[in-house]
Amino acid sequence: MDFSTYVRDVEDFPEKGIVFKDITPLLMNASALEAAADALFRLVKDQAIDKVVGVDSRGFIFAPMLANKLGAGFVPVRKVGKLPHKTVSESYDLEYGTDTLEIHIDAIKNGEKVLVHDDVLATGGTAQAVCKLVKQLGGEIVQCNFLIHLGFLEGAAKLKDYPVAALLKY
Amino acid sequence: MDFSTYVRDVEDFPEKGIVFKDITPLLMNASALEAAADALFRLVKDQAIDKVVGVDSRGFIFAPMLANKLGAGFVPVRKVGKLPHKTVSESYDLEYGTDTLEIHIDAIKNGEKVLVHDDVLATGGTAQAVCKLVKQLGGEIVQCNFLIHLGFLEGAAKLKDYPVAALLKY
Repeated sequence: MDFSTYVRDVEDFPEKGIVFKDITPLLMNASALEAAADALFRLVKDQAIDKVVGVDSRGFIFAPMLANKLGAGFVPVRKVGKLPHKTVSESYDLEYGTDTLEIHIDAIKNGEKVLVHDDVLATGGTAQAVCKLVKQLGGEIVQCNFLIHLGFLEGAAKLKDYPVAALLKY
Repeated sequence: MDFSTYVRDVEDFPEKGIVFKDITPLLMNASALEAAADALFRLVKDQAIDKVVGVDSRGFIFAPMLANKLGAGFVPVRKVGKLPHKTVSESYDLEYGTDTLEIHIDAIKNGEKVLVHDDVLATGGTAQAVCKLVKQLGGEIVQCNFLIHLGFLEGAAKLKDYPVAALLKY
């Protein structure tokens, strides 16, 4: 299946000059949704995974499906203040200012094998912060897995210590 | 499976006096995650569903899995300004102030059968706004489906026009 036919370009979103890759046409098509989940799973091949970490909020769409297919648990990483239990946190730079992500301290056990999933790899700041959270808890990152990799933004450079895989690359 | 053993009470979250039902212990357990997805699917029984609507952001965790199991598409409802394409919107009252939710105008076709899913039914304001969005697009709501129903908050009264089902009721 050519997944790119289900991705819509939206110009000037979220701000002028940006062309946003809108995955909602893919999500709302039952066949494309199922095929994309299967294809993301095949990117992992036969590597054992204990936990799939998904990033709030579009990373929540495929990460739990991947967890089910892999026989793993699902762990959410969220913006600061959203997780109710004790957390560890990582801040990262945005174009203007910083942002902070959190993970529950009991979400990953020392030595567990982790798949990190988000919908889009852009500048890589978010995924890098997620990987640092996983490492803080002693997790071993097996792969960083994305629906879309915007290669021209060179985000993979921030993830050079880990295998990076994506369904679609632009 | 007794799913309640995987739900953690967190006192005074998000504010003093509230006991928050934390589902992350359920999500991070591979068996409980899979069993919960299957049980949510069985709540729908053999009713035909075209689209599963999930509410940002914890509704995104199970709604796409339900869509896959039902052979349906997944449609996100998000806070105002998050969806990139043209939207319709609904505002609803919070304890202090109002909030606004949006759905893409092309997300549901007239007459399509819709399952609405969120993690928790509390006061019902969010789910009621989601149902209004679905109706604006001409969708027919088959069921409002929740992981947890906090019955003492009487949210089901706001959804009396629709069948309501939940895995756990408090």
